Order: sequence, then C-alpha cells, then structure tokens
Amino acid sequence: MEKETGRIEAFSDGVFAIAVTLLVLELHIPELKDGDTPVHLLNALKIQWPGYIAFVISFFSIFIIWVNHHKIFKQIYKRNTGLMFANGFILFLVSLVSYPSALLAKFFLSDSKQLSVTIYTGLFVLINLAFNLLWQQATLDKKLLRPGISDTAIRRLRNNYLYGFPTYLAAFIVSFFYPDLALAVCVLLWVFWAASSKKINFTETPVL
Amino acid sequence: MEKETGRIEAFSDGVFAIAVTLLVLELHIPELKDGDTPVHLLNALKIQWPGYIAFVISFFSIFIIWVNHHKIFKQIYKRNTGLMFANGFILFLVSLVSYPSALLAKFFLSDSKQLSVTIYTGLFVLINLAFNLLWQQATLDKKLLRPGISDTAIRRLRNNYLYGFPTYLAAFIVSFFYPDLALAVCVLLWVFWAASSKKINFTETPVL
Amino acid sequence: MEKETGRIEAFSDGVFAIAVTLLVLELHIPELKDGDTPVHLLNALKIQWPGYIAFVISFFSIFIIWVNHHKIFKQIYKRNTGLMFANGFILFLVSLVSYPSALLAKFFLSDSKQLSVTIYTGLFVLINLAFNLLWQQATLDKKLLRPGISDTAIRRLRNNYLYGFPTYLAAFIVSFFYPDLALAVCVLLWVFWAASSKKINFTETPVL
Amino acid sequence: MEKETGRIEAFSDGVFAIAVTLLVLELHIPELKDGDTPVHLLNALKIQWPGYIAFVISFFSIFIIWVNHHKIFKQIYKRNTGLMFANGFILFLVSLVSYPSALLAKFFLSDSKQLSVTIYTGLFVLINLAFNLLWQQATLDKKLLRPGISDTAIRRLRNNYLYGFPTYLAAFIVSFFYPDLALAVCVLLWVFWAASSKKINFTETPVL
Repeated sequence: MEKETGRIEAFSDGVFAIAVTLLVLELHIPELKDGDTPVHLLNALKIQWPGYIAFVISFFSIFIIWVNHHKIFKQIYKRNTGLMFANGFILFLVSLVSYPSALLAKFFLSDSKQLSVTIYTGLFVLINLAFNLLWQQATLDKKLLRPGISDTAIRRLRNNYLYGFPTYLAAFIVSFFYPDLALAVCVLLWVFWAASSKKINFTETPVL
Repeated sequence: MEKETGRIEAFSDGVFAIAVTLLVLELHIPELKDGDTPVHLLNALKIQWPGYIAFVISFFSIFIIWVNHHKIFKQIYKRNTGLMFANGFILFLVSLVSYPSALLAKFFLSDSKQLSVTIYTGLFVLINLAFNLLWQQATLDKKLLRPGISDTAIRRLRNNYLYGFPTYLAAFIVSFFYPDLALAVCVLLWVFWAASSKKINFTETPVL
Repeated sequence: MEKETGRIEAFSDGVFAIAVTLLVLELHIPELKDGDTPVHLLNALKIQWPGYIAFVISFFSIFIIWVNHHKIFKQIYKRNTGLMFANGFILFLVSLVSYPSALLAKFFLSDSKQLSVTIYTGLFVLINLAFNLLWQQATLDKKLLRPGISDTAIRRLRNNYLYGFPTYLAAFIVSFFYPDLALAVCVLLWVFWAASSKKINFTETPVL
Repeated sequence: MEKETGRIEAFSDGVFAIAVTLLVLELHIPELKDGDTPVHLLNALKIQWPGYIAFVISFFSIFIIWVNHHKIFKQIYKRNTGLMFANGFILFLVSLVSYPSALLAKFFLSDSKQLSVTIYTGLFVLINLAFNLLWQQATLDKKLLRPGISDTAIRRLRNNYLYGFPTYLAAFIVSFFYPDLALAVCVLLWVFWAASSKKINFTETPVL
C-alpha cells in the first residue's frame, strides 16, 4: 500500500527546517562605539550568553520534535481532515518557538526571567498536547496506520507522549518558582526523547 | 500515467512553508526601560494581542490554502504554461500575506483599523480569484487532469471556489463598515473550506 | 536510466522558494505619528509604490528563472562537478536578488534612481551568463543529458539563453541613460521567456 | 535495498537552502541624507565591501558543505540515533554561519578584525569535526552503508575530512596573527573540497 502522506511530510519538513534556521536571526550583532577595542566586542558577545543558550535549547528541541514527527509519520499511511489539522496545530506551535526563545534570550538576566521561562515552557506543554492529539487522531481510525503495525507499537508511541505531558506540565508549574530547574527539566526531556526514539523504531516495529 | 507536476508541488510547498513560518517575524519583542518589572513586560505582551490574532488567522489561512492547493494538484497530472502562471499568481499572493497581516497587527487598535482590515480581506479576494483561475486553466484541457476523474468531481471543485468568491467579496465590502464582521466571515470561510476539503476527496473522487 | 539530479533540484527549489518569499521582508510597515488618520496611512502606503513594483518584478523574475531552471534540468540526467558549480553560481545570484530589489525600491524616487536600476539590470546580465554556463557545462559531455535528446532541442535551449544575453546587456547599457526603458526591457524579456518556455518543452522534445 | 534516509536528506536540504539564502539579510541598504547624490550611494555601497566578501565566502562554504553532505549521504542507506544527532550537529553549525559572517562583515575594517576572523574560522573547525563525527557514526555499523561499498571508498571519504581537520585548525590558529592568511586558507580548502568531491564519486565508488 502506498503512503499518501508524502506532501504533508514535505510541507512539515519545510516548516521545521525554516523554524530551526530562523532562530539565528534572534542573535544580535553588538553595536560598538568609536574607539571600542576587541575587548569591548568580546565582552558584548559574552553578555549575550542567554541568547546562545536559548538558541541551543530551541534548536535541539525543534530538531527532536522533527525526529519524533518523522517517527510518527513512518507509521501513518493515510490521512484525513482530523490528522491534517492536528498536524497543522503542531506546525503552528513550532513556527512560534523563535518568539518565546527571543523573550528568554532578552529577559533571562532581568527581573522578568521567571515570566519568560514560564512562557517558554508553556509552549512546550502545548506542543506535547498537540503530539498527543496527532497520535490520537491517527489511531482513531486504524485504516490510517501502516498495515501490520502491532498494538504494542501503537501503545508505546502513545505512552511516549503521554508520559511527556505530566513532565512538561510539572516543568511549567516549577517555572513559576525555580525557572532554572524548569529549563533543566525541558533539556532532560529532550535527552529522554532522543534516547527513546531509538527503541520503538528498531525493537518494536520492523521498519519496512 | 506518471504525474509531471512533482517539482511544481515541491516549489509551491516551499513557498507555503516559508510564508507561514516567516509570519512569526512580525511578532515583536517588547522594549522595556530600566526598572521595569515583569508586570510591565506582561502588559507590553498583552497590548500586542492584535498581533497574535493576526498571526493565528494568517497562519491557518495559509495552511488551509495549502490544503486546498494539495487537493487540487492531486487531480492535476500534466502542466502547461497557463497552469504554471496561474500557480505562480497564487504563490505571489501567498508570499504577500505577511504584509497586510503586519498592517492589521499594527493598526487594529488605531483609527486605521478599517483600512487595514479592508486591505487584508482584499488580498483574500485575490487569492480566491487566483484559485478559480488555476482550476479553470487545469480544466480547459482535460488532458491535464488525473485520468478517470469524474465530471462531478470537476464541478464540485469548481463550485467550491466559485461559492467562495462572492463570500470573500462580501467580506471585503463589509470591511468598509464593520471590520470585525469582515474578519469573522474570513475565519468562517476557512472553517467551511476545512470541512469541505474532506467531502470531495473521499466521497466523490477515489484517491489513487 | 534514472535521474541522479533529484537532490540538486530539491536544493535549488528550496533556494528559489526562499529567495522569492523573502522579498516580502523588503516591504515596510509605515510608521505613523499620534493623531495620524487613515488618510495618512493610505498616503504612506501609496508613496511606497516603487517597493511594490520592485516586489512584483523581482518575484516574477525569480519565478521565471525557476521555470527555466526546471525546464533545463528536465533534460539533465547526470551531474558532474562543473554542473554542480554552474548551478551553485545561479543560486548565488538568485539569493542576491532581494538586495538590488531593495535598493531599487528605496532609491527609485531619488537622484540615485539610475544607479539602482543599473545595479538591478546588471544582476540579471550575470544570471543570464550563469544560465549559459550551466547549459554549456551540461552539453559539454552528452552523457549528462536525457538519453535520446535531439540536437535541435539542445540548440534551441542554448539559443534561448544566447539571445537573452545581448538583450540583457543592452538593457544594462540603456539603464545608464533611460532607466525606465531598461526596466521595461527586463519585463519584456520575462514575458518572452515565459512564452518561449512552452515551445521547446512541448513541440521539440517529447517529455518522458 | 531501499534508502531510508530520504526525509533526513530533505530536512537537511531545507536547512542548507535556508541558511544559504538568509545570508542576504546581512547586506544592509545604505541610509542617505537629504541632498545626497548617487556618488554618496556608490561610496556607501563600496564601503560595505567586507560584507560582500563575507557573503561570497559564506555562501560558497555552505554550498560546498551541502555538496559534501550530499556525497556522504549517497553512501548511507540506513539511519540510527547516533547518525541522526551527528547530522543534527552539522545542521546546528550550518544554521549558525550567518552570525559569524555578519560579525566578519561588520568588524573587518575595525580593530576587531582579528577577533571576528578567529570566530569565523573557529566555526569551520567545528563543522569539520561534525563531519568527521557523522562519517565515524555511519561507518561504526557497516549495515548503515550502501551495500557493496568498498573499503577504499570508506577510507577515502574519511581521509577527506581527516585531512581537513588539521588544516582548519591551522587556519584557526593562524587567524590570531594573520587573519587575512587564515581566510585565504579557508577559501583554498573549499577549492580543494570542490575539486576532491569529484574523484571519490566517479572513480572509486560506482554510483547506483
């Protein structure tokens, strides 16, 4: 049976690739004054460190979201309207990432640090919700899925995102009190997702 | 018979994906003054609400335009110069969306609200015209279409866009007097298009 | 024989799609002062008309360059280093278009109109040269071409770009004295290319 | 055996295409004062020459990185987590290029010339490291590679990047003392990579 999701994946890949590459536009070239030396430039670059951190975290979070999107769509062969719009919701949120990322970069060293981390982690709660919605839409009608997919594989994929939801929600709540810890939880979740992305593909469900 | 529209679809997908992802660049990071507190940041973010509305409406309108583009090109197998340029006209208008969207975001709370909504709805009248033109070009020479496509399917697709035209035109005219209503009509049309996108694909014309 | 130029075409399509979509970033949202009315906004939008002209000309020129690129690569089945770099040179020039386009938009109503039109037409002379180079690289080794391509088709494609070169060069020279005429020649050349794109594909060389 | 790296290549092509096309945003349109003549505009454009140099070097460096990425992935048929993340690291660095490129453009004529060249060459040391990492991940498990690839071809590809590393490192160290020489070494390395890209593909390993 032929996959009919090729153009959805191509469009989604485009959005992921652009969202991830636009992040660099949030890194600003320092303005120097006449007479400023390389030491001033170096200091101006150093003081932007929250921008670099935000860039790294946002880049790899979108990258891992893409890896997971890839993994899910390997199991989806047909599409319906529900699936199209669950996917559209994911793309909407992913295209947004650079905005809270820029907020984080700009306000991490200010009094508004907590607020910017809360907005940032809140977006990832929503992205996790959207992935749950996508997988729920895909499994509502088993005709959409790869022929021969096992129930174990379906359950594992769902659990992967279900477990993510309370953790992201916890990070979101924690961000009100300990923003650094909340960011750390987000980074750890990406490491977990990166590691777990292997197991399902290669152990549970044979790749065509 | 092989499709020869693959590269047109790939190029179009690229333009749609970029147009939709560039929208985020119109969301601005607030400037705070020394001594400003998180409350100031929160207020500065809240006051930008027309920008968020414009972002949401523009994102999903481009997304639904892409869904419809996808649906039409599933029925087109060959291309000619007329088709290429009707498609180019759609891409031209889609690449423009972020500009009236930014006008809307900036002037929605000002005296120029009506003008910005009129420009915005006017663009969608043109996009609807371009879709009618594309489908007319595709059906002028039935050799361009998917072999075995039924006349009912052709008529349904045409009607889908024909009915859209007077509605968008109405929204455009209404925008001079009741801009909020005009925007609401646009949103409702997308809901209609989203819902109607299902019927033709799965009921009328069997998907290869 | 399988085409091995798929990823070159995909990468090129990406660059064309982005170059064409980034043009909108050169359209600026007017700044109004407190107390400004919709009439001020309308006037501020009207005074930007060279920007709209530059946007339209640049959009459709890149679009037609893409159509021609598409047409050439339908005849190319294998690649070598010379072809890769001739293509890279085209992409380099295409990614540049938005810069002279922005110069044109900004200085068309100033004393620097002639200079900005000269730079703009100069870029298209170079793009034409790059296309000649690409086709020359492709035909140097006939093993790169589509099996069964006729000598007439090869000659026609070459002539298409050869004839373009003196015309663009003429536009470039004319731009020093009559910038409006030079722009008009460029637009007319695109119309010619658009029209001629049909003949070769459908009359001379049967499409696989 | 079917390749299963199609979507990785498509996503990577997207990032490469966007990274290369965004570079033009770092070229700035000069601001003129009332009464300024075309001579002022010409001078303002001329004084930006380091920006043009940075644009050319960065464009072709990303282009050659893409050519090499293409070459490596022609030999890779399966993927695992290590490969995904080595590739992600390359894309991360490539998406960054426009930032040190903009630093170079802005500070090349200032006291901070050496610092900006050092940062710029340092990024290419990292990109070279990432390519070594990718090829090492791909060859750790020979099941990932194209069936029938010869050991000579594997060794040649590895050597290609291994030889690059000490040269880039040398350019990086030299940049502290002779920034112009360091930039020249980078350009020469791209010429070498461009030339060497031919040999392995067409002599050593038959292309499917």
